[in-house]
Amino acid sequence: MPDTGKLPIGVFDSGVGGLTVVRALMERLPLENIVYFGDTARVPYGVKSVATIEHFTGQITDYLLDQGVKMLIIACNTMAAVASQVVKDKAGAIPVLDVIEAGARAAVAESRSRAIGVIGTPTTINSNAYARRMHALDPNVRVYSQACPLFVPLVEEGWLDHEVTRLTAQEYLKPVMAENVDTLVLGCTHYPLIKPLLQDVVGPDIRLVDSAITVAEQAARTLTEMGIANDGRSLPTYCYTVTDIPLRFQTIGERFLGRSLGTVNKVDW
Amino acid sequence: MPDTGKLPIGVFDSGVGGLTVVRALMERLPLENIVYFGDTARVPYGVKSVATIEHFTGQITDYLLDQGVKMLIIACNTMAAVASQVVKDKAGAIPVLDVIEAGARAAVAESRSRAIGVIGTPTTINSNAYARRMHALDPNVRVYSQACPLFVPLVEEGWLDHEVTRLTAQEYLKPVMAENVDTLVLGCTHYPLIKPLLQDVVGPDIRLVDSAITVAEQAARTLTEMGIANDGRSLPTYCYTVTDIPLRFQTIGERFLGRSLGTVNKVDW
Repeated sequence: MPDTGKLPIGVFDSGVGGLTVVRALMERLPLENIVYFGDTARVPYGVKSVATIEHFTGQITDYLLDQGVKMLIIACNTMAAVASQVVKDKAGAIPVLDVIEAGARAAVAESRSRAIGVIGTPTTINSNAYARRMHALDPNVRVYSQACPLFVPLVEEGWLDHEVTRLTAQEYLKPVMAENVDTLVLGCTHYPLIKPLLQDVVGPDIRLVDSAITVAEQAARTLTEMGIANDGRSLPTYCYTVTDIPLRFQTIGERFLGRSLGTVNKVDW
Repeated sequence: MPDTGKLPIGVFDSGVGGLTVVRALMERLPLENIVYFGDTARVPYGVKSVATIEHFTGQITDYLLDQGVKMLIIACNTMAAVASQVVKDKAGAIPVLDVIEAGARAAVAESRSRAIGVIGTPTTINSNAYARRMHALDPNVRVYSQACPLFVPLVEEGWLDHEVTRLTAQEYLKPVMAENVDTLVLGCTHYPLIKPLLQDVVGPDIRLVDSAITVAEQAARTLTEMGIANDGRSLPTYCYTVTDIPLRFQTIGERFLGRSLGTVNKVDW
């Protein structure tokens, strides 16, 4: 019988943002093998229709299942918001985790005032997925959402501590802060890179929930509960596959991952 | 024998930006039928590799040739920069115009100081296509280029006259302005929407070249020279096809087109 523990965790995103989840997994679960899929030829998903996102998500899920993964992590808020059922239907008995579920749980557990802010791409916010999930966990929380379409391009431009990013954040966050939230969910895998700037803009009393970290915690618990953690002693392998290798891909990818990317495979779809 | 004049002009872009070219064509050539193709499911191209852009461009060209167009206009600087040969190879005797050729010609004709600035997406700028084309027209011009990756998302956010956009423009344009250019080519079909703000940032002495307008002028000349202008008296038809109809598509599209879009067809690729 094959040792399920040695099988990789499949992590996927529409682009490079999900590498913040890979980074958190490497730190929390240093023995696990990981295969990452980034749909860089069709990024960003946050501005596409639900039907298109479901179609693309199904393709990626099939690809990772063919790689023999033991767990799937949807490291893209947009896909988690509108297409997680597509993944679960295909995955069968393989556990499926996602950044929205993880971020919603952490926010509800941490908020004292029961007023929670969520920021993300337009599609994530319009899907209302965070608010729905948090209300299912606690009907008494009040959720205030704000789409921040410029944050992804600002992060990819590398303006992580730039006056333009600060002004943009002030404008986007003003209506959410006016609701006296005590917790703010970073509902997009790009946002952890501007966490220091966002903390500065909202002030020290607001707790920022980084769903990359919370989904890595949830992955650790699930692997232990299911008895499928990797107990091997060999160094883990990390494998990256994308649908396009654009200009500056290596630079941007390594900014998200916090280390060298090594070899990246490309598939043509 | 069929009347070639009645056949539509095919205009295409990776997204909605090319609608600024359609708008210019409607004004300059009010009798012409137009079919527009926007690859909204895979936009933006400006951050993808050359191989991927060539592949996508070929697909769109085949689609429009199947519609029986009499002329093709590449209304996307990124495709014009790296994949115009793909279009010409497929088009055969059908004339192919593009925004880079048109913008380069206009800039070289208008500049007095022979120092010309070009702004565009990273792929357009890195392709060096504008500089190559301008040097072929006049080896003595000096071309200074600057990639402005945040302008497209800023335009799509609708921040056309916003402090953030102004600060971003000041930062991007500073090195180009330091070269004493007298002409600045807007090398992306999104940029005409922030033309007033850009004019303000560079000052009244710099001439801005809007390639949507210049390509419409070139289309008018070519149709006349080839004797294939539409001399019919019926109202022209405008037909829009996209690969995805995302949130806010209608709003954003109409901002570019300057009028109602009417029915939009969607194809699934």
